[in-house]
Amino acid sequence: HSTLKGTFAQRSKTVTHPLTAYLFRLMDLKASNLCLSADVATARELLSIADRVGPFIVVLKTHHDMVSGWDYDSEFGTGKKLSALARKHGFLIFEDRKFGDIGNTVELQYTSGSAKIIEWAHIVNVNMVPGKASVTSLANAAKKWEERSRYSVKTSVSVGGRSRGSNEDEEDDEESEDEADVATTSEGRKGSIVSVTTVTHQYEPAVSPRLDKTILEEDSGESIASFEEPPSDRGLLILAQMSSAGNFMDERYTNACVEAAREHKDFVMGFVSQQSLNTLPEDDFIHMTPGCQLPPEEDEEGTEVKGDGKGQQYNTPQKLVGIAGTDIVIVGRGILKAGDPQEEAERYRSAAWKAYTERVR
Amino acid sequence: HSTLKGTFAQRSKTVTHPLTAYLFRLMDLKASNLCLSADVATARELLSIADRVGPFIVVLKTHHDMVSGWDYDSEFGTGKKLSALARKHGFLIFEDRKFGDIGNTVELQYTSGSAKIIEWAHIVNVNMVPGKASVTSLANAAKKWEERSRYSVKTSVSVGGRSRGSNEDEEDDEESEDEADVATTSEGRKGSIVSVTTVTHQYEPAVSPRLDKTILEEDSGESIASFEEPPSDRGLLILAQMSSAGNFMDERYTNACVEAAREHKDFVMGFVSQQSLNTLPEDDFIHMTPGCQLPPEEDEEGTEVKGDGKGQQYNTPQKLVGIAGTDIVIVGRGILKAGDPQEEAERYRSAAWKAYTERVR
Ligand SMILES: O=c1cc(CO)n([C@@H]2O[C@H](COP(=O)(O)O)[C@@H](O)[C@H]2O)c(=O)[nH]1
Ligand SMILES: O=c1cc(CO)n([C@@H]2O[C@H](COP(=O)(O)O)[C@@H](O)[C@H]2O)c(=O)[nH]1
Repeated sequence: HSTLKGTFAQRSKTVTHPLTAYLFRLMDLKASNLCLSADVATARELLSIADRVGPFIVVLKTHHDMVSGWDYDSEFGTGKKLSALARKHGFLIFEDRKFGDIGNTVELQYTSGSAKIIEWAHIVNVNMVPGKASVTSLANAAKKWEERSRYSVKTSVSVGGRSRGSNEDEEDDEESEDEADVATTSEGRKGSIVSVTTVTHQYEPAVSPRLDKTILEEDSGESIASFEEPPSDRGLLILAQMSSAGNFMDERYTNACVEAAREHKDFVMGFVSQQSLNTLPEDDFIHMTPGCQLPPEEDEEGTEVKGDGKGQQYNTPQKLVGIAGTDIVIVGRGILKAGDPQEEAERYRSAAWKAYTERVR
Repeated sequence: HSTLKGTFAQRSKTVTHPLTAYLFRLMDLKASNLCLSADVATARELLSIADRVGPFIVVLKTHHDMVSGWDYDSEFGTGKKLSALARKHGFLIFEDRKFGDIGNTVELQYTSGSAKIIEWAHIVNVNMVPGKASVTSLANAAKKWEERSRYSVKTSVSVGGRSRGSNEDEEDDEESEDEADVATTSEGRKGSIVSVTTVTHQYEPAVSPRLDKTILEEDSGESIASFEEPPSDRGLLILAQMSSAGNFMDERYTNACVEAAREHKDFVMGFVSQQSLNTLPEDDFIHMTPGCQLPPEEDEEGTEVKGDGKGQQYNTPQKLVGIAGTDIVIVGRGILKAGDPQEEAERYRSAAWKAYTERVR
């Protein structure tokens, strides 16, 4: 399929879903197709690991309901703090909720309760086993929310009264250079503009798409680095295949997931799956894949990785991205349990990126 | 299958799982096989509806994550308050979490995070699509928790220093009459004992099993009615079939659920399913069934009920309990949206109980 050979930069220009387009640009810019599965025990650890590993990842995956001390306050809580880190480092937040119920129930679970997941998670996923109606209900909930939030200010940095942000046409980018020197982030933090730069590729400063990065400095002297804000669109991944041993997601189910995705292209970004599921010429879904570990560093050439003894099965980034054609690898314990998670994240980023560059070459 | 003809009273004597045995006794005692699906928006509404409908139900099903203002404090929070109501009225709490992930993840979601579901939910359920390992992991988590909690005081009422509760042999029941006149509930509320009664059948004061009911009165004059505490064992229901249109739970999956249940009889109480799945002579699983509504009262003889327009499909108690052989009907909006939910709960209780008595006759 053509998406196997297309670069993330190319795909960012043609893909329908605005959030997927943003994500592809981010991937290209940061030279990363790595998602951290931040399965830690406390909110403090979560924020700390997100800040440390942020530079190496493009998606941060959460299970908010296994994190003790998650602060559900919608103004100053953990979701808001994660969003700030997401903008600082440039990554999307993916709450791995695996909604899996009748339509009416998943709609409420997505938008209500203490967690109000829709407020802080750019991406969620659904286990579609209860039927396609669960996807429709989530899509409707997202549409309602997006319409409402369109009336609230969504720009990350407003410069001299004129707003700058991802909602504007890209053609307006020239304006970036002629602005006043005070700006306000969408969290309401005011600061003097130290610089407005167009960030180019972190590792290969080449023809990549651009994301604006504005450095603000507060009166306190604290600097707030702010990536271009992602579009306000929400995105869904359909859980089409699983990594765990003896799971019951058979081909018939997987095919139905692909069908549902095609029926909701404005909401469904793609899949959590074990391989690329793009088959029609017009398909350009993004694929994120858990069950990923690298052999220990000493054994760089190894290709076999053992499971976790509780049903989880692992593959290397080379196999998942290079051979099975997925786009983003999701890594949890492989990074979290390492002596130096930051260094290990860079090792995973580099291996997954290498598998990608070799695939598209 | 023999469980279709066996009364709940009979089954309570032979079933393996202590929590199922307790539940069968409760059902017989209260003449109820009704579960309320308490899908309300706020914690205040939840506690209020649980208190009002409590007398008519044997299970209260929650989606804690769609309830705003759920207080996660483990001493004084919503879970604890629900537990107190559960003991006051005699019902079990079933958190409809539909765990559906790799073993390691579901274990943490069951026991950790803000919600600590295992602390307050007698029953949870699992979507076994990720594989059988998810059941094993939940079973291990429950076993660890039960072992730990065995060392903490689990009795509901301690009378004159001697503890009374379900953990004791039933032979000791005579002692109920010769106690001191002050007692403490497990929530730490002290009160004078107004009466210790052995509650018999609510509607047919016959040969039914007995549950002790102690009426305490606080100094304030407030009375605390307390049912015999359920055993500390936790129970799991496997989501083996769904009510929603076009769901992907096929026969192969359902059969695997039954297999997994047989492999974990000390933890799995039964199923959320659309029909009885007891097939081997030794099977005695309990079946709870959502997707249940009655035609409006004016149309008492009607048998057709429309869906909710979002994929939910409804059947009558008569069809589910009488024909398909399930044990407990789960009703949400049918009761919640009624003008008088209490009256409507009694209408559902009576219809479901009638379907049961006609079945075992
Ligand atoms: O098929 C799947 C799907 C998901 C995500 O939707 N996951 C999740 O990825 C993560 C893998 O973590 P690990 O790298 O530590 O095994 C866990 O959070 C697990 O819940 C899987 O492990 N397998
Ligand atoms: O197959 C299922 C399984 C469950 C429970 O595990 N449910 C749940 O029952 C309830 C039915 O509510 P209703 O009576 O209002 O349709 C909802 O909470 C829904 O999530 C279903 O509706 N269908």
